[in-house]
Amino acid sequence: MKPERTMSEKLDTFFHPRSIAVVGASGTPNTFGYLFMDYLIKAGYKGMLYPVNPKSEEILGFKSYPFLKDIPGDVDYVISCVGAGHVLEMIHQCPGRNVKGVHLFTARMRETGDQKGHDLEQHIVSEAGKLGLPLLGPNCMGLYYPREGISYAYDLPEKPGKVGGIFQSGGTSINFVRYAGVRGVGFSKVISYGNASGINESDLLEYLAGDDETGIIAIYIEGVRDGRRFFKTLREAAAVKPVIVLKGGKTGAGTRSTFSHTASIAGSSNTWEVLIRQCNAVMAADMDELVDLAVAFNYLPEITGKRAGVIGGSGGKVVLAADECEQAGLEVVPLPEDVRDLIRERAPELDNWLGNPVDFSIMAGAGLIPMELIEKMAKSSGIDILICNVTEENPFDDAFWAQLISFEINEYLKVFSAGLKPLVVTMANPVLGIADTGEWRWKTLLEKREILASEGIASFTSVRSAATSLSKLANYYLNRRMQHGGVK
Amino acid sequence: MKPERTMSEKLDTFFHPRSIAVVGASGTPNTFGYLFMDYLIKAGYKGMLYPVNPKSEEILGFKSYPFLKDIPGDVDYVISCVGAGHVLEMIHQCPGRNVKGVHLFTARMRETGDQKGHDLEQHIVSEAGKLGLPLLGPNCMGLYYPREGISYAYDLPEKPGKVGGIFQSGGTSINFVRYAGVRGVGFSKVISYGNASGINESDLLEYLAGDDETGIIAIYIEGVRDGRRFFKTLREAAAVKPVIVLKGGKTGAGTRSTFSHTASIAGSSNTWEVLIRQCNAVMAADMDELVDLAVAFNYLPEITGKRAGVIGGSGGKVVLAADECEQAGLEVVPLPEDVRDLIRERAPELDNWLGNPVDFSIMAGAGLIPMELIEKMAKSSGIDILICNVTEENPFDDAFWAQLISFEINEYLKVFSAGLKPLVVTMANPVLGIADTGEWRWKTLLEKREILASEGIASFTSVRSAATSLSKLANYYLNRRMQHGGVK
Repeated sequence: MKPERTMSEKLDTFFHPRSIAVVGASGTPNTFGYLFMDYLIKAGYKGMLYPVNPKSEEILGFKSYPFLKDIPGDVDYVISCVGAGHVLEMIHQCPGRNVKGVHLFTARMRETGDQKGHDLEQHIVSEAGKLGLPLLGPNCMGLYYPREGISYAYDLPEKPGKVGGIFQSGGTSINFVRYAGVRGVGFSKVISYGNASGINESDLLEYLAGDDETGIIAIYIEGVRDGRRFFKTLREAAAVKPVIVLKGGKTGAGTRSTFSHTASIAGSSNTWEVLIRQCNAVMAADMDELVDLAVAFNYLPEITGKRAGVIGGSGGKVVLAADECEQAGLEVVPLPEDVRDLIRERAPELDNWLGNPVDFSIMAGAGLIPMELIEKMAKSSGIDILICNVTEENPFDDAFWAQLISFEINEYLKVFSAGLKPLVVTMANPVLGIADTGEWRWKTLLEKREILASEGIASFTSVRSAATSLSKLANYYLNRRMQHGGVK
Repeated sequence: MKPERTMSEKLDTFFHPRSIAVVGASGTPNTFGYLFMDYLIKAGYKGMLYPVNPKSEEILGFKSYPFLKDIPGDVDYVISCVGAGHVLEMIHQCPGRNVKGVHLFTARMRETGDQKGHDLEQHIVSEAGKLGLPLLGPNCMGLYYPREGISYAYDLPEKPGKVGGIFQSGGTSINFVRYAGVRGVGFSKVISYGNASGINESDLLEYLAGDDETGIIAIYIEGVRDGRRFFKTLREAAAVKPVIVLKGGKTGAGTRSTFSHTASIAGSSNTWEVLIRQCNAVMAADMDELVDLAVAFNYLPEITGKRAGVIGGSGGKVVLAADECEQAGLEVVPLPEDVRDLIRERAPELDNWLGNPVDFSIMAGAGLIPMELIEKMAKSSGIDILICNVTEENPFDDAFWAQLISFEINEYLKVFSAGLKPLVVTMANPVLGIADTGEWRWKTLLEKREILASEGIASFTSVRSAATSLSKLANYYLNRRMQHGGVK
């Protein structure tokens, strides 16, 4: 007798479909029956695509079938966009088409707080269970898997990468992919799983923990089905790859909202924080930090020291950079002796003046140019990481400014490519006016940010966010090393 | 005998100059001797403008004079761009031209940590003191005063407003003005004061506290000359108008940096926090928050209640909005009974589902449209403030999305203009790729943000920042009311 396949094996088959049926497909733009078809087309899905709708002959250029059972041949993956009342009928047609799993975009079940919705969801889950059918959802966006051309939104990155995601909220998962994507992050598989009635957060975490394409896991979670299993899985996952967790429902009002959203019981915030820390998962405070942490882990090597060399900017910007680094848990150490030796030798008049962070304006006219100092800092064993703080605002005219900032960033690129020290760049992302979106100087920052990403450098929009991510990253690797019985 | 004029009276004369001399003016673009001339020209300064440089006949179209003493007629305001070694000579020429005050952009004195720089600064201050000459700086950008056409940077808002500023850092003051300006804030006078050796932070605070053009005061400060006087002045100022304080130098490394920057002794961070709270000034955690608080106080009326109604978005975005509001100290109360009555009457199926924050996706297809619900919330006495959380990301195509978002924001504008309840709008400001800066949908957000500003609505880039600002604003007015022996 064949041993039963594990959930991870089932998921792997489910997530590599040679054919997809969109049940409830539609030819009307901006309905979800249309969108799920169009997402797949635009993302370049290469397998067979079958729209299912009893009222259409053809949808978006694809022959349409009245029911799932009418499709000629096997269907590996089903996306359900039909109303809640039609799901059971569809489930019962799955065995005939050899379906490997069903994604229920369909919602309005348990999360409505209504007994009928609750009972229907239970019934669907139980029927799918009898058929051995993995069920994703209900009430979720499903799968974004760029390697397979599977997507649940427009314009998500086509280039795959190593960040995987498990998101209880679909909108949040789209935001995450889009915002991290702009900063150069690529993705293995990101799964929006909604009410988690069939496939749950622990199944997905176990799967991504064992998935070779996934090097980092990002999670947005509102509640768990089985806390003991989840935290056991989280601990095991975090021991082999970084797992970043954003918890939704940390307050009274947040907890009330999680129920309306995914019928989740959010649980005590303190308990969550303690357990996440014990598992050595990395806690993100909010969506911005979830993205920042994905950027940090995506680009940076294993760092366990927290002594930061901070360079760039002048005056108040430097003072605030120092504060923000130390508040985030980094140590902005005084310049190490080997760096001070260089200053004493080449610009002795700055010996009592220049410090860490390095204020560029102090170096103006000195016998030592910033680049030489940065290189020395990159070589110094007294510094673990460099934070390059781009002067995004200055007093000069636009053309001169663009020149200066290009020069500054090129210097950082040179230091980075020498590979002497982990290095990140911070550049502000201020609110713009319409007048600023043309050829104005902020465009320079966008261009530079893309260059940094393509060169493999992590960029952040503030020193605070860079320092917070770096500090958490260092903590993660430090803890992991200690848990593995390492030397440090 | 005439009584001596107070420092505030002297400053008021100094800041309304009929003539300005730029000593060390230059015809070379992007030198500060050029920039300070050009800033004034571009800002539309209407008084007499005298470049001073022994090597030029004419600078930027203005007749140049070899020395200050050669200018025919009085000079009210002197901007010094000469090297530190030339300042004393210039100071001694001031009485002959009836100068009302001197702004020393000139730097490299006490902040260098060098005894010679320290002594020179002392000498300059003492000589200016003997001449009864207010001295701004050294090491500062000086005055931005849009009503008088005086500026220390390019492209700062021309339209005046009610926010005044006192900044120990010039670059930080430029950032503040630019970023708050984009969000519709106008300014009375913003002063960058550097080393504070002559005119100090307490002089300036006392002046702006009594200045009718200034309704809100923003401060960036690294250290104080006379702590007792500063906190006394701060308490008095905060009793009559909101004073927002960003403290630079809160950590070990930050404190070391403040000395290199403005020769300031930063003092203990805890002491600062306690004293600022006791004065009922509003503490900003960083530059972004300083800008957010200026936006909040600029637009919002006196609010003392913290019960927030949060509307917009769906799913995880709503859950996170609830968490961020409560973490910031607002109360996201369950929907008040009068609002629930409307739901029960018009969409009874949502009674157990729809909550606060209001998830728009739950209302789809219901017998109650979001606008009716928002109006009811605006009328309810159970809610103090509305936070409208714009859905900046969604699954539809660009054109449809632009339509939806316009509709949503127009609804908020309608509720706002009815004047029923204080209301703010939050819209994300994500990092863009170059591909997104053309006609892509994010431009819609920029346009909408400008419309909101022109209509007098405070907008924020996150629920967290909106909630933090609102919570601090409510605390300020609540404390002020209590201190004034009010009823609440």
